[in-house]
Amino acid sequence: MDKPFEPACVFSERAQQLTSSAIREILKVTERPEVISFAGGLPSPAGFPVEVVREAFDRVLSSNGRAALQYGPTEGYAPLREWVAQDLNRAGASVTADQILIVSGSQQGLDLLGKVLVDRDSKVLVEDPSYLGALQSFSLYQPRFAPVPTDDGGLIPEALTPELAEGGRFLYALPNFQNPTGRTLNRERREALVLRAAQLGLPIVEDDPYGELRYAGEPLPSLLSLGRECGANVIRLGSFSKVLAPGLRLGYIAADRGIIHKLVQAKQATDLHTPTLTQMAVYEMVKDGFLARHLPTVREIYRRQGRAMLEAVEREFPASASWTRPEGGMFLWVTLPSHIDSQQLLMQAIEQNVAFVPGGPFYAGTPSRNTLRLSFATVPEDRIQAGIAVLGKLIRQQA
Amino acid sequence: MDKPFEPACVFSERAQQLTSSAIREILKVTERPEVISFAGGLPSPAGFPVEVVREAFDRVLSSNGRAALQYGPTEGYAPLREWVAQDLNRAGASVTADQILIVSGSQQGLDLLGKVLVDRDSKVLVEDPSYLGALQSFSLYQPRFAPVPTDDGGLIPEALTPELAEGGRFLYALPNFQNPTGRTLNRERREALVLRAAQLGLPIVEDDPYGELRYAGEPLPSLLSLGRECGANVIRLGSFSKVLAPGLRLGYIAADRGIIHKLVQAKQATDLHTPTLTQMAVYEMVKDGFLARHLPTVREIYRRQGRAMLEAVEREFPASASWTRPEGGMFLWVTLPSHIDSQQLLMQAIEQNVAFVPGGPFYAGTPSRNTLRLSFATVPEDRIQAGIAVLGKLIRQQA
Repeated sequence: MDKPFEPACVFSERAQQLTSSAIREILKVTERPEVISFAGGLPSPAGFPVEVVREAFDRVLSSNGRAALQYGPTEGYAPLREWVAQDLNRAGASVTADQILIVSGSQQGLDLLGKVLVDRDSKVLVEDPSYLGALQSFSLYQPRFAPVPTDDGGLIPEALTPELAEGGRFLYALPNFQNPTGRTLNRERREALVLRAAQLGLPIVEDDPYGELRYAGEPLPSLLSLGRECGANVIRLGSFSKVLAPGLRLGYIAADRGIIHKLVQAKQATDLHTPTLTQMAVYEMVKDGFLARHLPTVREIYRRQGRAMLEAVEREFPASASWTRPEGGMFLWVTLPSHIDSQQLLMQAIEQNVAFVPGGPFYAGTPSRNTLRLSFATVPEDRIQAGIAVLGKLIRQQA
Repeated sequence: MDKPFEPACVFSERAQQLTSSAIREILKVTERPEVISFAGGLPSPAGFPVEVVREAFDRVLSSNGRAALQYGPTEGYAPLREWVAQDLNRAGASVTADQILIVSGSQQGLDLLGKVLVDRDSKVLVEDPSYLGALQSFSLYQPRFAPVPTDDGGLIPEALTPELAEGGRFLYALPNFQNPTGRTLNRERREALVLRAAQLGLPIVEDDPYGELRYAGEPLPSLLSLGRECGANVIRLGSFSKVLAPGLRLGYIAADRGIIHKLVQAKQATDLHTPTLTQMAVYEMVKDGFLARHLPTVREIYRRQGRAMLEAVEREFPASASWTRPEGGMFLWVTLPSHIDSQQLLMQAIEQNVAFVPGGPFYAGTPSRNTLRLSFATVPEDRIQAGIAVLGKLIRQQA
């Protein structure tokens, strides 16, 4: 039988806007083993507690297999919700288990927040630059992004004017070792930010995937903790990706009950629930304080990697460039002399088998094309030095 | 410090429309152990191959732990995609691994299809009645549902007129042991349906979570297989929930490359990827033909359960009621005398500790309020008999 014709799909408007991310396309190039890639956002697998994970899955499946393999509640596995609430409260928050929704990685948290808080043309405030994956996730719900200015200290609370906040559905902020800049909001700015948000009636979405990866300086209170003191509405996203392993795809949202209720309804329609087995296994791992024993190892890996990159950058990059000095996380942000376009630099670097992510795509506002993001999490120290030397030479040739 | 005020969230229009599903609210009531519940859509845990799952996770984490715990490609784990493609081809399809997207349960497949194919007020054709979870999932993208009439043989292909199909983004159909009716589309209707869809240029979304749970009659070709013979654009959703275990949250979408490409972009923004560990473990389970050995056990469980319910219904229900005789799956659909409202019947039944789902919510068109869905998957045979006896008595009192 002949095919009468090939009926095509009509894609939605949002699907037509969808494009592969710059990071993603670059990662494809950098999969070749000879490439020294500072592009990826992958955590260091050296920090994955493989044996502990194996034992936890084994224990759950041996003792409670049928429950672990059955459908579960959309809200998440009750003991894990309780553990997350307690963990947040130890750090100064005041939440109960019914304010916790377990999600399939905090990226899903972003999607669910987009679903329940964003209409077409809704105003969403974002740090400028901000996490590209969040911009893409919210974009599916077709908001207008309102960029909030930042400086070396991160988001500038005073820049959050009533005009800028007017009609905003929320402000999306990453206070710790921000992706892409590695910057951390200090205590004064945190307090000023939540107070201002409370006064303006603007909810804050606090995304904190890296908070536990602090290897220098003093831990700072979360926006969630500070928010309760002044009545700010803070919705917090957390993740097990960097403290245990990202391939598990496990995170949480903490928020007030009304918001959690809506998010649960949205999650039910989205994927019913996060895998029961994974939740039970992670609860097995964390319930007896494993993270407190494990995190120093992870932090030490990131500290060493970060120091190696910072030392290499200080040695190889010209004085006309500047860069952040993160106290944790996995990213360094470099500002080149203003005439150097980092996208062009990338093309030159890739010819010499070195990769990074140009800064442009991280901006919701006017991009600074002379910026770039360097990830230090997964590259061995000798390759960090070799790769940064290549970049330094290229930059010095143009500086 | 006094709270200045409590800033609320402004929910999106779609979030305001979100309501808890009837099924969900009823399930809450039926969690009490004394309730005999025919309401749930839970598969029988007796069929979960717990020990095989345990061994598979153990093998993957012992041999390849760091890869299993790292971020993975959005498209899915390559060997599992290849296995799914081969499995579909053994059943008459002709697809390659790059036409497969691994998803976090087929419910996520529905959400992703809504994302890339549905705009506000897009026409989406659905069997009437249809799977409530799909209606809810698509609803987040605010379509207009166009109900397609059904009869005892399921969807009526001739009812798919050019007027009805005009401007439709797709037709959503469950050809095997449909949820909620248990009906199966016969071969003639399948052929007529795909031919008509091809002529009308209407894509079909074929949702087949129960296909492998056939315990009577002959297997029929999928719409995906039949579609390629006449050029119909069929997007197929499959699931490991009923053949292995639902708590793993693992399914797939098979479609043409252009659609998969868009779905991958949408999934990247939605949850990055489905857990690597789960995909590798399921591949470990299925790669050497485990399902062929395991499925007869699962089918026998459902056959026995289904027969027990059918025998009880035939014994207890009055002749003025009618019901479907499914050849697989987990649902029976009952049509009561037209003056009996099944929602009211449910209230009476719950007082006697028996639950089911009234038919109304499954209709996108005018609901037949004298219908109801009975799930036979998880209730022990003696409780099936006791519960159906209670319902039969209530119905006979009103018939």
